[in-house]
Amino acid sequence: MKGILFDIGGVLYVGDRPVPGALEAIASLQGRFAMRFVTNSTRKPPETIHAKLTDMGFMIEPQQLFTALAAARQIVEEAGGKAVTILTEEAEKYFGSLYCIDTRSPFVVVGDAGENFNYPRMNRAFRALMNGARLIAAAKNRYFKDADGELSLDAGGFVTALEYAAGVEATVVGKPSTEFFRQALRSMNVAPEEAVMVGDDIESDIAGAQRAGIRAILVRTGKFRPSDLEGDIKPDAVIDSVADLPKILGVS
Amino acid sequence: MKGILFDIGGVLYVGDRPVPGALEAIASLQGRFAMRFVTNSTRKPPETIHAKLTDMGFMIEPQQLFTALAAARQIVEEAGGKAVTILTEEAEKYFGSLYCIDTRSPFVVVGDAGENFNYPRMNRAFRALMNGARLIAAAKNRYFKDADGELSLDAGGFVTALEYAAGVEATVVGKPSTEFFRQALRSMNVAPEEAVMVGDDIESDIAGAQRAGIRAILVRTGKFRPSDLEGDIKPDAVIDSVADLPKILGVS
Repeated sequence: MKGILFDIGGVLYVGDRPVPGALEAIASLQGRFAMRFVTNSTRKPPETIHAKLTDMGFMIEPQQLFTALAAARQIVEEAGGKAVTILTEEAEKYFGSLYCIDTRSPFVVVGDAGENFNYPRMNRAFRALMNGARLIAAAKNRYFKDADGELSLDAGGFVTALEYAAGVEATVVGKPSTEFFRQALRSMNVAPEEAVMVGDDIESDIAGAQRAGIRAILVRTGKFRPSDLEGDIKPDAVIDSVADLPKILGVS
Repeated sequence: MKGILFDIGGVLYVGDRPVPGALEAIASLQGRFAMRFVTNSTRKPPETIHAKLTDMGFMIEPQQLFTALAAARQIVEEAGGKAVTILTEEAEKYFGSLYCIDTRSPFVVVGDAGENFNYPRMNRAFRALMNGARLIAAAKNRYFKDADGELSLDAGGFVTALEYAAGVEATVVGKPSTEFFRQALRSMNVAPEEAVMVGDDIESDIAGAQRAGIRAILVRTGKFRPSDLEGDIKPDAVIDSVADLPKILGVS
């Protein structure tokens, strides 16, 4: 075991508070393992996510963050194009000059946009797709655990809406894309069989990592529901929370 | 040939104007054929649609209207339940005391809601579905020809979004549901082989009617695009507009 991939929201923290014991667990693992924090969270740019984690007390370096929003931006930038986006305002600012509202743009980028999932934005994206734009889904998660404790709609449904209406298929950038997991591993020079993924999403984190050849540990925090264990996807291990990770990896 | 089913928007009128020759065509066919005007248009209650048509000059009786919104309302009413809805305000008023915002409601009803396709409503519907509500799609059209001449998102994508996120399958009430076409035919006592459907939507109108055993005529108005004729669906006839219908039915 050389490397660990962590999901962030629901694993390191829930709501705005660190999971009990998570700060100590991450601190005890840093230096012993290569680590990347991989997230489909697209509401905020990587810098803001890093600042939030360090403010909570997590010992994490900026280059250990691996976000779907950054990966989506990279695709548009490398193609030299611009994108009609459905993102939060903060995430749209992160796109800078790559952001536009011209329905002749070559890209449509969709992330978790919250209240910005409105008809004008959805329809603008639809029209760009009908004009031939490529649909980039930063993520395709079905739902997330919201601040009020209930599950709320994530970007996945809205991506599916655009796919159905425009008759196209999205390129999914974030988890559970095999390429996303592999990129994260390559950035720390670790092979899939030398790594483990820790997440709270049975589909994106667990099934996604396993398809990429990585063992996957499910935590019982965040969006975990007992029914997650009744389906076809079998985690390699299930732990109460990330606080139990050092113990099962042999770190006291 | 005993009966004719007509789609309304895009066939009888485009934007707010009757298709040239449509008023005369409908007038000449009334009395010679049993007729129903079947529509997935769910933005307005049946009375309002009828008033709009008669204001334009169409000679149509109220009982000749057959709308998906009315069919959806009937399901909720017959079950004695209430529904969380994503509809226009006018259509929600038509639901009257059947409308509610309680996410423990037994039904979710989705129609073409326009600007009401917003995050708070979508998320409320999602939560009701996660609590076990049944998803009723008044229609599942992909798009419609908007007032500005461009195609715009219809309810279909948003229905698909909820299906994907909540892991459920919608009951589609309107076209292309075979049951919807059959109900319209039964209401005028006409068999499928004695009827013809006239529409501008290659999927909902043409393929839907043909699956119900009804011959289908595509008009080159409304949402028609030349590429509609390049796919697997073959209309039984294609005419420039509904104005040409009397001629091909042998009515001078």
